[in-house]
Amino acid sequence: MISFLLIIYALSVEAKPFNGNASYLEKRRQILAAEDEVRVGGDIILTFAEQKVNDILMQLKHDEIEASIYNNTPYLPHMHFFKAKQLMQKSKVFQIIRAMPKGGALHLHDSSMTDLTWLVKNVTYMPKCYMCFDNNNILKFKFSSTTPPTTDCTWRTVSSYREASGNVTAFDEMLVRNMSLVVDDPDIAYPTVNAAWRRFTELFQTINGLFQYAPAFTAYYSEALKEFYEDNVQYIEVRALLPPVYELDGSTHNKTWVMQTYKKSTLQFIHDHPDFSGAKIIASDIRSKTKVDILSSVKDAMSLVQDFPDFMAGYDLVGQEDTGNTLLFYLDQLLYSSTQSGNNSLSYFFHAGETDWGSSDVGKNVIDAILLNTTRIGHGYAIPKHPAAMDLIKKKNISVEVNPISNQVLKLVDDLQNHPASVLLSGGYPVVISADDPALWGARGLSYDFYEVFMGIGGDVADLKTLKQLAMNSIMYSAMNEQEKKKAMNLWRQKWDRFITEIFLSGGRPNHA
Amino acid sequence: MISFLLIIYALSVEAKPFNGNASYLEKRRQILAAEDEVRVGGDIILTFAEQKVNDILMQLKHDEIEASIYNNTPYLPHMHFFKAKQLMQKSKVFQIIRAMPKGGALHLHDSSMTDLTWLVKNVTYMPKCYMCFDNNNILKFKFSSTTPPTTDCTWRTVSSYREASGNVTAFDEMLVRNMSLVVDDPDIAYPTVNAAWRRFTELFQTINGLFQYAPAFTAYYSEALKEFYEDNVQYIEVRALLPPVYELDGSTHNKTWVMQTYKKSTLQFIHDHPDFSGAKIIASDIRSKTKVDILSSVKDAMSLVQDFPDFMAGYDLVGQEDTGNTLLFYLDQLLYSSTQSGNNSLSYFFHAGETDWGSSDVGKNVIDAILLNTTRIGHGYAIPKHPAAMDLIKKKNISVEVNPISNQVLKLVDDLQNHPASVLLSGGYPVVISADDPALWGARGLSYDFYEVFMGIGGDVADLKTLKQLAMNSIMYSAMNEQEKKKAMNLWRQKWDRFITEIFLSGGRPNHA
Ligand SMILES: [Zn+2]
Ligand SMILES: [Zn+2]
Repeated sequence: MISFLLIIYALSVEAKPFNGNASYLEKRRQILAAEDEVRVGGDIILTFAEQKVNDILMQLKHDEIEASIYNNTPYLPHMHFFKAKQLMQKSKVFQIIRAMPKGGALHLHDSSMTDLTWLVKNVTYMPKCYMCFDNNNILKFKFSSTTPPTTDCTWRTVSSYREASGNVTAFDEMLVRNMSLVVDDPDIAYPTVNAAWRRFTELFQTINGLFQYAPAFTAYYSEALKEFYEDNVQYIEVRALLPPVYELDGSTHNKTWVMQTYKKSTLQFIHDHPDFSGAKIIASDIRSKTKVDILSSVKDAMSLVQDFPDFMAGYDLVGQEDTGNTLLFYLDQLLYSSTQSGNNSLSYFFHAGETDWGSSDVGKNVIDAILLNTTRIGHGYAIPKHPAAMDLIKKKNISVEVNPISNQVLKLVDDLQNHPASVLLSGGYPVVISADDPALWGARGLSYDFYEVFMGIGGDVADLKTLKQLAMNSIMYSAMNEQEKKKAMNLWRQKWDRFITEIFLSGGRPNHA
Repeated sequence: MISFLLIIYALSVEAKPFNGNASYLEKRRQILAAEDEVRVGGDIILTFAEQKVNDILMQLKHDEIEASIYNNTPYLPHMHFFKAKQLMQKSKVFQIIRAMPKGGALHLHDSSMTDLTWLVKNVTYMPKCYMCFDNNNILKFKFSSTTPPTTDCTWRTVSSYREASGNVTAFDEMLVRNMSLVVDDPDIAYPTVNAAWRRFTELFQTINGLFQYAPAFTAYYSEALKEFYEDNVQYIEVRALLPPVYELDGSTHNKTWVMQTYKKSTLQFIHDHPDFSGAKIIASDIRSKTKVDILSSVKDAMSLVQDFPDFMAGYDLVGQEDTGNTLLFYLDQLLYSSTQSGNNSLSYFFHAGETDWGSSDVGKNVIDAILLNTTRIGHGYAIPKHPAAMDLIKKKNISVEVNPISNQVLKLVDDLQNHPASVLLSGGYPVVISADDPALWGARGLSYDFYEVFMGIGGDVADLKTLKQLAMNSIMYSAMNEQEKKKAMNLWRQKWDRFITEIFLSGGRPNHA
């Protein structure tokens, strides 16, 4: 990183006017070169083949930008994802990004990372699946060996409803619609952050009945691994609530069983796909719970770290930040592990600053996350409004998990060129890109979010260096240990080399586009 | 300004975990105190009365925020100004801001700063005013001693149309509507930056026929002074195109006449309102013109600075930046004055970075503005995406003229909590607030923009210190000379003292609210 102070010094000692254009242009070149070097990926030196791929990619990017500026084609990062998604799939830039090995997805949630159509087409077809619409018209599911007792709604089997519907396709689409945030006019359906979150939270009530059924739970997770793998993601980290997973007879499994299941499925997937680097779990609890509950889940997480040292990465608090409790509210509970003797530390991966109320008590979560020694910050949308946080994340090398589409769909920002992570990218801060809850807004894997970063948040200047650094960051800033990172990085380098060769030789047309 | 490096050092030497809550909370307090001090206005020490006024103001602000978060009342900085304006007028915070002495408005344009209803109710009622709708259905006006010849439209007197309309109120409202960006559904009418700018540019074709008529020209400017004065603004700086101002017989006046007229009207206004500090003109040209034209207007500006040393402040380029020429394009012309010997320098006040294409050639205008020794930067919306620009504006003390409503109406940002100037405010950068073209979006004076900064861009933390500093900045960073600044600041202090006393004694109810 070049010091701007040097440039500033050079400028400030220049008392006389510029000695004509040449001197001006040289100074300008220096400043722009310094900016170009400081940005994320700016100091990467591309190989010959990478340069050629970069030329191809930047030409395609330039074409999309020009089409927008001069032909009034909609510019996709300005559009709501629900409307941009279909157009994005046709983009040649998107197709290259999909083919690109993207490293890891470090910010995902257990029950929102697998395609909803898969969920309906598979899990709701499992035997003994019951459904009903409750008093609030929320769709509920339950697996049970016998018909569940009527509570606030009357249960019938999905299969009987499906048969009675007379149109299986339409019926299944209706089920998907009831689990999804996707609507025709999101600005009408979700006028505010709170409105979006209200619906978002309801959806989990629908999904949980499916997701938490033991056979479905295992299949759901394996399908998630497959979807990310197919999107050229080689590693994931999952914020997991570790809920009681239930069987047909109503009996439930504890957190250890859940962890074992995750681990077994991961190992199986690696066995079947040796070029996959694995997964880790981040135990999560909900920030509306009592302090007593949070202390209890902190303790559970500490013991799970002991039991699954290479698989349980740490702890986080999830749920809407604006309306939930702050990190400060749980200070005693979150400091608990640091007061314990021995090798009992708990790593944190806090959601913090997922708000446009940047300087509120909620916005101050970014400061508390840092003071609580968080390993990474989830979202950190408010960080650029906190100069101390900006300094500290750089100094302490705390990476920020940016989830562009999530922030748009959950109403923090419309035009992704305005996303505050643009400041982090141009300033060379440690950033990783993730997808948060892709299934709930119809995304899949990581490519849509990478596209938004490449075309929107990163600005015109984002290039192959940016993408390469972001992919490498996702391994460097993961919760893997040094040896795992080294192995994952070697794997990624092979994939990257293949990708570069393929795009280079094809002139920009990946095989699977 | 407290150094964050000290804090960072304190944190990094802390190897062992926090010694319980007390130590954590002390460290937290230090960081938040440092952030609180570094922000714009953070180091101001309020008097006893100011503290009381701040308490009142912050309680009112808090009430509006709470109402939005918990009662789902729309939060005004999230809303489009066309819809928020009426609600804003009812806000007690707004009423206090309106009563507050705001110093100067440093970023205004000659033909868009005076209320359009005034324009219609006065200028179109002057004798010999003709109108027509041209082939593009754009309303045109012309004053003429005889009926102007038919060109692309057929001229008739406004008075005859008005009489024929049968409804003077509706007719005059129609005229206003044809000069204004205001529509019922701005998102439909102006889906993109380009669409908004297209209409915006058209409006000047309508207004110019009125504005450039000599008797109207003088009256328009005096009315602008009056409107800003009534909004408790004591000084303005106007980007002026210095167009040929015409008489009934078609003869036109040159730039010197225009400058003399501005100066005479200003002196008259100061004579009538001794607590008004005056005005200065910034000669402006349009960034779509040829290099030859720009060199010519640069030379004109240089000679006007000689002729009106206390009134002509400098030079700027205006018009849509995305589609216009860059500063670099005009490099030779803009460096011209620095190559001339003697006391021939020309101060610049460049519009730069009024774009969400922050890292494009357009975004790089912020770098060129700095290298061209600009005194201030107009908009600078792209600055936080340029780390070198961030460093340089602080080091060289270049202030950024932030025009919140302009940026919203011209489609750079919807939610003003996302405005990038939030980073400038929280980081203590030199910022002034202005109104750009308030008349065209139905604003008046500076209060609406100050409200958006106080409630939106500045975040929860913005308080009376912020407002006070922004008001003082508008004098400190003006083009006034040291003596003029001192006089204006003294005037402002008296006004401020009266304002504080009034709010203090009334418990938050200004006289004219
Ligand atoms: Zn999340
Ligand atoms: Zn302007």
